[in-house]
Amino acid sequence: MTTAIKTFPVAISARHIHLSEEDLQALFGPNATLTKDFDLSQPGQFAAKERVSIEGPKGIIHNVRVLGPVRAATQVEVSRTDAMKLGIYPPLRQSGDIDNSAGIKLLYGERELVIPQGVIIAQAHIHMTEEDAQALAVHNNEVVAVEVVSERPVTFRGVVVRVSNDFSLEMHIDTDEANAGFIEQQAQGKLVKASL
Amino acid sequence: MTTAIKTFPVAISARHIHLSEEDLQALFGPNATLTKDFDLSQPGQFAAKERVSIEGPKGIIHNVRVLGPVRAATQVEVSRTDAMKLGIYPPLRQSGDIDNSAGIKLLYGERELVIPQGVIIAQAHIHMTEEDAQALAVHNNEVVAVEVVSERPVTFRGVVVRVSNDFSLEMHIDTDEANAGFIEQQAQGKLVKASL
Repeated sequence: MTTAIKTFPVAISARHIHLSEEDLQALFGPNATLTKDFDLSQPGQFAAKERVSIEGPKGIIHNVRVLGPVRAATQVEVSRTDAMKLGIYPPLRQSGDIDNSAGIKLLYGERELVIPQGVIIAQAHIHMTEEDAQALAVHNNEVVAVEVVSERPVTFRGVVVRVSNDFSLEMHIDTDEANAGFIEQQAQGKLVKASL
Repeated sequence: MTTAIKTFPVAISARHIHLSEEDLQALFGPNATLTKDFDLSQPGQFAAKERVSIEGPKGIIHNVRVLGPVRAATQVEVSRTDAMKLGIYPPLRQSGDIDNSAGIKLLYGERELVIPQGVIIAQAHIHMTEEDAQALAVHNNEVVAVEVVSERPVTFRGVVVRVSNDFSLEMHIDTDEANAGFIEQQAQGKLVKASL
């Protein structure tokens, strides 16, 4: 393990939604497809031009970006700050793990759709390839600590490693984690130890 | 240094404002005084019933709590999330250090008051007495690291020690730091090392 590859870029995920084909049609109409706005750093993923509103018992948030491509199940990723504003209690989960997560109402124009589950707060994670994992001496699903240097330095101690050769090396945190650590896009994270 | 006293309660400071006597009168009228709502944990400090709105170039936040007693200078403490909503760029500072900090407009009913400086993001800090400082083996203004155990564990590495026998032992963080670490009122912090 060399020092050089112990750092990696940190990307900040704003609140967003992944839609199933069925929910996409329900909100945007029959035969609707997602329109790519720009590519995201993870291969094949893109930010769509489509936006929806999400409404909970206490509040509504507009202009939530839809990410593509469509997925098997609709998933909404919000920050804890968002959750408090909405009045919902989403669990901290890895992407895709939505059983018994929070529900929400999705709105687009006159159309609305209540999903009984699918809202999570995404656990901070590091996407990496098998080669990256070997170089960093970590394995898939390992929980590690990552420190970020900034004017308000924070170490995140519950960061999960996600290994796939479809990934490119990058850590993802949400806006609460970014704001707590005064972290801007393309900051560098440093793996400090396996931890909890 | 024993293990027992290495932990301390963590309190979450929501956005709030301290008013000077002059600014209190300007907003609430001649001879206005603050009405105590409840005592805060630091001796002599209280949450007042008075609330103001704060407005920046990009947005407004209502119902910002005034804390008492009045101070020599007006000071507004917001989170980075708040600052982004308001469209202002307050520096990270210790309480009282407001030279060249951000300005803001304060509003109460029909009255408004623009302050040219006074808005800060408060640096996380630990209030303690001389005796606490000795027990924790730290000194006034030392920057230390504090870890908090939670479902989303975070270590804050830029925490400043503030020693006065007028204080009671307690760490103060803002809402961004609390939400990043899933920290609830009366969580416990643990001093882990001197750091930056």
